[in-house]
Amino acid sequence: MLQATGMIVEYNPFHNGHAYHVQQARQLTQADVVVAVMSGNFVQRGAPAVLDKWQRTAQALVNGVDLVVELPTTQAVQPADRFASAGIQMLSALGCQAVVFGTEDAQLDYQQIGVQLAQLPEHHQDFKDYRQTYATQLNQFYQQQLGLSLDYPNQLLGLSYAQANAELSRPMTLVPVQRQGAQYHDTQLTKGLIGSATAIRQALQQVPPQWHQVQQVVPKVTFQTLQQGPLVNWARLFPFLKYRILQADLGDLQAIYQMNEGLEYRMKQQIQAAVTFEAFLKALKTKRYTYSRLQRLCLYTVLNLKTTAIQAQQPYLHVLGFTPAGQHYLHQIKQQVPWPLITKIDRKLGQESGLMGTDVRTDLVYQNLTGENQVYGRYPLRPVKEI
Amino acid sequence: MLQATGMIVEYNPFHNGHAYHVQQARQLTQADVVVAVMSGNFVQRGAPAVLDKWQRTAQALVNGVDLVVELPTTQAVQPADRFASAGIQMLSALGCQAVVFGTEDAQLDYQQIGVQLAQLPEHHQDFKDYRQTYATQLNQFYQQQLGLSLDYPNQLLGLSYAQANAELSRPMTLVPVQRQGAQYHDTQLTKGLIGSATAIRQALQQVPPQWHQVQQVVPKVTFQTLQQGPLVNWARLFPFLKYRILQADLGDLQAIYQMNEGLEYRMKQQIQAAVTFEAFLKALKTKRYTYSRLQRLCLYTVLNLKTTAIQAQQPYLHVLGFTPAGQHYLHQIKQQVPWPLITKIDRKLGQESGLMGTDVRTDLVYQNLTGENQVYGRYPLRPVKEI
Repeated sequence: MLQATGMIVEYNPFHNGHAYHVQQARQLTQADVVVAVMSGNFVQRGAPAVLDKWQRTAQALVNGVDLVVELPTTQAVQPADRFASAGIQMLSALGCQAVVFGTEDAQLDYQQIGVQLAQLPEHHQDFKDYRQTYATQLNQFYQQQLGLSLDYPNQLLGLSYAQANAELSRPMTLVPVQRQGAQYHDTQLTKGLIGSATAIRQALQQVPPQWHQVQQVVPKVTFQTLQQGPLVNWARLFPFLKYRILQADLGDLQAIYQMNEGLEYRMKQQIQAAVTFEAFLKALKTKRYTYSRLQRLCLYTVLNLKTTAIQAQQPYLHVLGFTPAGQHYLHQIKQQVPWPLITKIDRKLGQESGLMGTDVRTDLVYQNLTGENQVYGRYPLRPVKEI
Repeated sequence: MLQATGMIVEYNPFHNGHAYHVQQARQLTQADVVVAVMSGNFVQRGAPAVLDKWQRTAQALVNGVDLVVELPTTQAVQPADRFASAGIQMLSALGCQAVVFGTEDAQLDYQQIGVQLAQLPEHHQDFKDYRQTYATQLNQFYQQQLGLSLDYPNQLLGLSYAQANAELSRPMTLVPVQRQGAQYHDTQLTKGLIGSATAIRQALQQVPPQWHQVQQVVPKVTFQTLQQGPLVNWARLFPFLKYRILQADLGDLQAIYQMNEGLEYRMKQQIQAAVTFEAFLKALKTKRYTYSRLQRLCLYTVLNLKTTAIQAQQPYLHVLGFTPAGQHYLHQIKQQVPWPLITKIDRKLGQESGLMGTDVRTDLVYQNLTGENQVYGRYPLRPVKEI
């Protein structure tokens, strides 16, 4: 029986630090198979991924991941705690024994903290202070309850993984890995510098793109794909968001997931003069909402993700790619997985009433930006060795 | 008391034939004031106007029209019979004594035919033959009932004007003017060749545009505006239509005006592969629907015009421009007009629940294509003499 270790990732795009993380996951847990649950074409912060999910899967497969399963847009584009719990549930459904995750506090006892958090009463509804963001209030809550202060985004993710894991009927082993800033890692493992995905995306957005900077911190396959393009970002999506808000009536906007407290009026008001996405976000910003929250709301709006559709979404496991070991592992677990295991999207799955209807709809909006087929006729990728 | 003669027009764009028509209207009826009810930013056949409504108003004012009132998009983008009846009702509301219109059958007794048509039972519901278009069935109906055969589009308009006029409590005088093909008219009246608006739009779409051809058949003010651009057409709107159909769920599409008999599924199916608007229309086409019908449906879709909004629309008179005589006339009638007379759109009129909410929403989509303000802060234009 093959043993699997899981990770929850975005790979936006896949870089040397990710390759290092994969190899650590395998080494620390002695797993036969490394499974990545990866955001699809849209990422947690509320943005289109710079490369599509198939391109990012290809990068993961040649850099040590054995099985890539899609974290659907409806689950991925969520606050950290929901993103984390969706990912944990998927890894558990995929039969993983352990979860490896990066954190700034690797010395904490996550297993123990998870149990503590899971025993706390449901708290989301209590954060009703309109002068502060949800994130600030969640932070205060953790500080009061656990004496933990959250200074880095990945700390919140780590705590959320721990809590979601403790809530499973059979929790997995949590393996925190100390996160490090950008630093030199010229080891056999990483063959290059480690940077952050944010820094890479920023270098790509320079005019001209800072290719030399990018090249140092990503594997060859990522670099080639980035150079070929097309690269996707909010700037390419913004004309459609603007049109969308202009043509929508208030009822259309009110139906959008997370459109509450009159934000639809604010959107309608601010969009007319907005020339860039950044300017629009800035115009929307109030003390009550973080930029991430508003950015996700904009993404729900442009993707027409309604509360009803998000609430009706049933879980599934869509396989984006595998190595021979990953494929073997899939074979091993396929009788036990609690959710539909999908390797090919047919019209029935993709139609509106189908299990993947909502995600297919959002993928077609992404496809419309790049012209690259995202849905029908795509099968799980296999690793193509780097030249 | 000033006497007014009315016309129902699109001016897409304003050309020498239109100038000739205006002067004939004045001459034949000896009117003090010529009133044009003109389609706004979207025209009857289901397309954005090549120039915006303010530009087209400016052209009309320097070429003899005294008062331009907007035929709202919800009324203009309609089959010929509804377009005609909305226009007639507006001219009547504006106190016109006569209506001048071009037709290929100027010898017919329209007053008499109008009475006959108005006495026929309501027929729209009876055309249920799915193998033929509505237009074909309407044509057969007219042939059976009146012995008239409709060979030109303007014949149908003429009959529709006649019927709508006969249905008024105080019908206006109908003044048909024989329509002529493109021909030489180097008279004092027209100062140039007469072409058709269709031919002008085609010449503009050539690469490069056939400016010489256009220049011969339009007044100087039209030519200058066309040369400055931006020119609007379906090609500029199509990326938004494509995005719109991809992101919409079936319920969104079903809410669109005239989206019946499963057309929403057909749209969803055909849009993915469509690269141009023409290709998409062709892919949608069946025996049951004319291209005009489908083109209007596409426009309703991209403008998000719902059945509920169209049905709830209340009439109003939005003034786009006037000469001193036109302004004087407005003054004279303003106590008697049965509908709100609007010379400036404030936020209350433009908000969703406001009288002009739906039209403002569609105008903002047009504005988004050109960057030229269409709504707020715009006042009726006055004629600026040609240089």
